[in-house]
Amino acid sequence: MESPISATGRVSLTETAEFAAALARRAGGHALRSFREPMDVEVKGDESPVTIADREVEKLMRDAIRERFPGHGIFGEEYGQAGMDADCIWVVDPIDGTRSFITGWPIWGTLLALTCSGRSEIGVIEMPALSERWIGTRAQGTLFEARDGTRQSARVSGCTQLSHARFYTTSLLFFEGRTRERVEAIAQAVHTPRFGGDCYIYGLLASGHVDLIIENRLQPYDFMATIPVVEGAGGVITDWAGQPLDMGSGGEVIVASTPELHARALDMLCA
Amino acid sequence: MESPISATGRVSLTETAEFAAALARRAGGHALRSFREPMDVEVKGDESPVTIADREVEKLMRDAIRERFPGHGIFGEEYGQAGMDADCIWVVDPIDGTRSFITGWPIWGTLLALTCSGRSEIGVIEMPALSERWIGTRAQGTLFEARDGTRQSARVSGCTQLSHARFYTTSLLFFEGRTRERVEAIAQAVHTPRFGGDCYIYGLLASGHVDLIIENRLQPYDFMATIPVVEGAGGVITDWAGQPLDMGSGGEVIVASTPELHARALDMLCA
Repeated sequence: MESPISATGRVSLTETAEFAAALARRAGGHALRSFREPMDVEVKGDESPVTIADREVEKLMRDAIRERFPGHGIFGEEYGQAGMDADCIWVVDPIDGTRSFITGWPIWGTLLALTCSGRSEIGVIEMPALSERWIGTRAQGTLFEARDGTRQSARVSGCTQLSHARFYTTSLLFFEGRTRERVEAIAQAVHTPRFGGDCYIYGLLASGHVDLIIENRLQPYDFMATIPVVEGAGGVITDWAGQPLDMGSGGEVIVASTPELHARALDMLCA
Repeated sequence: MESPISATGRVSLTETAEFAAALARRAGGHALRSFREPMDVEVKGDESPVTIADREVEKLMRDAIRERFPGHGIFGEEYGQAGMDADCIWVVDPIDGTRSFITGWPIWGTLLALTCSGRSEIGVIEMPALSERWIGTRAQGTLFEARDGTRQSARVSGCTQLSHARFYTTSLLFFEGRTRERVEAIAQAVHTPRFGGDCYIYGLLASGHVDLIIENRLQPYDFMATIPVVEGAGGVITDWAGQPLDMGSGGEVIVASTPELHARALDMLCA
């Protein structure tokens, strides 16, 4: 990846990934201070909840990115787009899983991605309340850091069969009509169907604990950081047409540990 | 509660609760060693998965209970019933949430309850991968111990309205027909519907982060430990007829932070 270097003249992919990981960790630590504390919850136009913590944490992240990479663009969930004509754009979700956050549920994450020429090159899934994180670079692989600080390469499972697959989707309620029937049929066909998770399930897939994910209604700030984590660990992540995801993708995502499993699930989903 | 004293002549409710908490912690720590490690998963007659860890951990718990309370009965998920004619019976679930356990998902628990004359008097929800726990005694209240070791009294929220309620159920797939429609209607009526969780959501309700839980297909070892945790924190937990739960209950459970919310949800569920 040349882009961060050419855009700033200063940094390598490795340094940029380290910056991203450190920033996500700091931001997540800030969000954690509000977790399980009394808070006001607003409901936005798209019905997603937002807290004061979402806004504070995104501001912290935007300020840090602007200081280090003034030539880069930023796209965040709470404060929108800035400098979107730049080749390198950071995509920020301060609290992915706000519904978890507001129900005391520790599975919410802080997401940070760097996209260059439309491709997601670096992605961080930081889980503040679990003290776990995945740092993915498409070019250099995906690292998982456990609660005890140990780091290891993340690698997807070899699962190729639906009947063996551990399957996650955030909520059946997000699917309607014919699509709902198809997703329920997949849930019946797999080994273990599970619900919930938001960004965390992409990390679990990268580490080989989950084999298949199908979701819809996602925004770029929900999935851009997950792409390098999944691809760096050897997994397949596309839209429901089987095409690579980018900032313009429509919010339908399918992820599998192998191309075979991806094809089989896609067949059932779009038959 | 007189029963543990009268059955052994030796111990108080407080000492018995401490024994239960320490045993659940030791057992959970044992289960944690197998978490995210390669494992064989069997599927039992009721389609629930079981691992070697389930069996080892239950054995450890049964041995410890038999040594300390030789006159008590034991009912466990994996090894069944022993001494069920005793007044005091321990109810054991070594890994509640085996589907979580086998998908690398840290929200699974080790459950331990002491029932006397059919009532659940002491309950422990131990969350080994999160290092959190709730220790509930109906008579003396519920303690929450956080990852950093701090302990505080758990207290339910004051939520009385469905439209404000944070609602959890493990999976919509467990409900069928008219019941599925009613549970989905409740999911639409609440503030935040959420899926997944097993025993953990009962702890979150006790601590005021969740307001309403509706589940079915549960076994006594799934819910007996949650009763003292919920009731000790001031919440309401019954079957779908509004009756107290006991070892003979049919597996349908409804839990609410207040009697008002409990009545409103029960109205919609059984209209």
